Amino acid sequence: MSKRALPVTRDENFPEWYQAVVRDADMAETSPVRGCMIIKPWGWGVWERIQGDLDARIKDTGHDNCYFPLFIPMSFIAKEAEHVEGFAKEMAVVTHHRLRNDGGKLVVDPEAKLEEPLIVRPTSETIIGDAFQRWIKSYRDLPMLINQWANVVRWEMRTRLFLRTAEFLWQEGHTAHADRDDAVAETLKMLEVYRTFAEEVLAMPVIAGEKPANERFPGADNTYSIEAMMQDGKALQAGTSHYLGTHFAEAQNIQFQNAQGALTYCHTTSWGVSTRLIGGVIMTHGDDDGLRLPPMIAPRQIILVPMLREKPEDAELIEYCVSLEKELKAAGIRAFVDVKPVKSAEKRWNWVRRGAPVIIEIGGRDVSGGSVTFMRRDRLRDGDKVISKTVPRAEFVAGATVLLKEIQDALYAEAKARLDGNILTNLTSFEELAEYFGPATEADDEGGAFRGWVRVPWARPEGKALEEIADRLKALKLTIRNAPLVQESAAGKCIFTGEAAKEYILIARAY
Amino acid sequence: MSKRALPVTRDENFPEWYQAVVRDADMAETSPVRGCMIIKPWGWGVWERIQGDLDARIKDTGHDNCYFPLFIPMSFIAKEAEHVEGFAKEMAVVTHHRLRNDGGKLVVDPEAKLEEPLIVRPTSETIIGDAFQRWIKSYRDLPMLINQWANVVRWEMRTRLFLRTAEFLWQEGHTAHADRDDAVAETLKMLEVYRTFAEEVLAMPVIAGEKPANERFPGADNTYSIEAMMQDGKALQAGTSHYLGTHFAEAQNIQFQNAQGALTYCHTTSWGVSTRLIGGVIMTHGDDDGLRLPPMIAPRQIILVPMLREKPEDAELIEYCVSLEKELKAAGIRAFVDVKPVKSAEKRWNWVRRGAPVIIEIGGRDVSGGSVTFMRRDRLRDGDKVISKTVPRAEFVAGATVLLKEIQDALYAEAKARLDGNILTNLTSFEELAEYFGPATEADDEGGAFRGWVRVPWARPEGKALEEIADRLKALKLTIRNAPLVQESAAGKCIFTGEAAKEYILIARAY
Repeated sequence: MSKRALPVTRDENFPEWYQAVVRDADMAETSPVRGCMIIKPWGWGVWERIQGDLDARIKDTGHDNCYFPLFIPMSFIAKEAEHVEGFAKEMAVVTHHRLRNDGGKLVVDPEAKLEEPLIVRPTSETIIGDAFQRWIKSYRDLPMLINQWANVVRWEMRTRLFLRTAEFLWQEGHTAHADRDDAVAETLKMLEVYRTFAEEVLAMPVIAGEKPANERFPGADNTYSIEAMMQDGKALQAGTSHYLGTHFAEAQNIQFQNAQGALTYCHTTSWGVSTRLIGGVIMTHGDDDGLRLPPMIAPRQIILVPMLREKPEDAELIEYCVSLEKELKAAGIRAFVDVKPVKSAEKRWNWVRRGAPVIIEIGGRDVSGGSVTFMRRDRLRDGDKVISKTVPRAEFVAGATVLLKEIQDALYAEAKARLDGNILTNLTSFEELAEYFGPATEADDEGGAFRGWVRVPWARPEGKALEEIADRLKALKLTIRNAPLVQESAAGKCIFTGEAAKEYILIARAY
Repeated sequence: MSKRALPVTRDENFPEWYQAVVRDADMAETSPVRGCMIIKPWGWGVWERIQGDLDARIKDTGHDNCYFPLFIPMSFIAKEAEHVEGFAKEMAVVTHHRLRNDGGKLVVDPEAKLEEPLIVRPTSETIIGDAFQRWIKSYRDLPMLINQWANVVRWEMRTRLFLRTAEFLWQEGHTAHADRDDAVAETLKMLEVYRTFAEEVLAMPVIAGEKPANERFPGADNTYSIEAMMQDGKALQAGTSHYLGTHFAEAQNIQFQNAQGALTYCHTTSWGVSTRLIGGVIMTHGDDDGLRLPPMIAPRQIILVPMLREKPEDAELIEYCVSLEKELKAAGIRAFVDVKPVKSAEKRWNWVRRGAPVIIEIGGRDVSGGSVTFMRRDRLRDGDKVISKTVPRAEFVAGATVLLKEIQDALYAEAKARLDGNILTNLTSFEELAEYFGPATEADDEGGAFRGWVRVPWARPEGKALEEIADRLKALKLTIRNAPLVQESAAGKCIFTGEAAKEYILIARAY
């Protein structure tokens, strides 16, 4: 039995712990619609902050937001054959446009069958490509830099809140360029935007790198990702950026007249991050008392709980909290006084589970002494004991912004130490790799023993050789995550082919 | 032939003029998906500002944002019978979840038929009500105040960009209360939020009032609306707020335990505005040169066009513009230097058509004289001549914020004068009404002669009598818009029933 605020600890059962955090932090819940989630106010508040900050970065790099239709004609999907092979099969298909009352029973009206079925967008390459084909005439129209915030649907069989849901929310960038160099530079620029965003805002350290050929987005020449290490050691792909070459441009006739007057295919890119990031934040920062939110994305950063006792002095406590809240808000802090009619202890633990960065509890002694008693969510306990600190009110207000920054930095440092300390680099053979991870068992899905990542020399095999390696890894529930962009020059032999290594790759179990 | 920047004037053909503005201001375009629009960056920028401002007002009144599934099980729709009768018939129905490759041809996989069809949400009362039923246990949970920003789909047969599209974007508020008084107060509070938002931010004067029984939202006890007058005299319903009584609560079992321990049905409300508002802005403020945007929702408020001539002096012009842009941005103004490689005159007219509130053109004389030459979009011409003004640079910068406020106010004043001046109040019979509006002809759809609104005494007939009146009005393409909340006490006789009037109502042709 857990001595913590959650009914299950990370060590006991990581997947169950994850579900407990999502539920007890009031982030989201399953809905009556298979695989679709309801994002609750606290979870939505986190997403709003993610959107707000990332959107500014996307605009600062010259992209315009647009909105494209939810539906895609089936013929558009068919046009992009590789696309279909890849992941466009499990999709929500709209076939009719009317219900009718059939003797008191509501039925799909067979007379309202669509001539062409419509697909609920799983991603928007095809419909945006169609617009690009109309919009782009000359080199003067390039680069075309578009982003969209939207809901998308992929009919997933096994779903998990935030991590894998049938409907999810994301941003998808789509760009067209005059040549390869410009498009590749864009692909890498946006990967870097994702990396810095994840580290600076989510306090989630990641490794940016290129995916091996077998893990590419269908139709991409190169796929890059940022990978984050969760507290169970698994990798989470937290964002991807694709250089699509001229494949999509050729399939959709996206051409431009260059300065010499010749018609040329554009080089295109696409890149996206989704509500999955919230799952990443939970598994990066959560502890056995619940969520711990980096202050930059916390909907409320400092909670003020007046320790009400249904006595006349209550008014004074509330007044003290409200004036303190006002001072903190004036300093640009998202402060909030919780006056709900429930017990103070219940409020404390509610906000602990939700991961509010700082929780202030104001009692009579604080009011008379002009002090503030507070807890830091990132350092909640010493052993089992909850740590709180009392400081003069003016001192607290003056230091509040710095305190939040310290918490943001501390969460990042803790996660960074975990990532840096758990990448094994001394394996020299596939056998050692297999031994390190051990056989794949069902227990892995239940939160098996912690295993970090391994970094091994890689000769960059292709084709059938790569497929065979992927299969051998798959039998161990492993995948190649990426080849980090920043790495020393490779030494030694590829542990799969024995050839001289060209680079290092990361291998891990993953979400 | 128009002497203006658009190919067609409002007088010549209002509906064609509207389409020309949407196209030439680069706001939106039709997509290959029937009835669905593509919102382009300039249009999306307007929507972002609408969202941002209105969202703050919704939060300031105590509402939390959530996100609910895109899909609604068909059985949910069936539960709410009145709901179905009302408007839930023409809907996008998802019946399958997979495509398959059938001998090289992509087809809907018959084996992947859903057990229960899913409806793409036309509105979310049913799915949110289902959550309320789970979330609400006691009076302590009330009021429950939720809002959602989302895309919704209604299978419209005749669509018009922004005004009526199959997919549109909106916010939908859904709330539950302990009693009638609290729910009605909420309904009216949000109507007032819409009214002040429309007037203060969109510079679009509206009349807030209650809809007659025949125009209520299906299942509502009371429906309120804000109505705006377009430049062709027609009314545009720009937002609605509904008091739903306990109908939805009873259909979905939304009950709470009151302070005495008894189980009681909640009283619920819902309210929404959509991308339709953008259509309202266009038809309120546009002129024959294109769109005129109120500064508060203009994605770019002040445009700086350096009058480049591909000469060495160009660098100086750009530098002058960039430093001026910086000063304006420091004052919190959305300034933008347009350095696109197209002719200055083309740029000017592009920004005129897009409705940027202020357009600055910087030539050599401005640089040497330290001045700024600018046009106000709200007062672009004197007769056919374009008006520009030259002032010292420091003076322009110091007055820029006030200038934008003046433009915002001037657009509102112009629209307010139109609304106030075009409501006829002296009609005393149905015959006079019929004569004023004239017979309904196809020409009305092509932008017939300007007719304002009429305000007539009304005895508040119900049932069959009301239906007959609605039919008589319909034959003239007229509808009752609402009974204004603010009105003098009624005198005279109802022009339909001859009974003593209880109030005044507004009648108009409408979008």
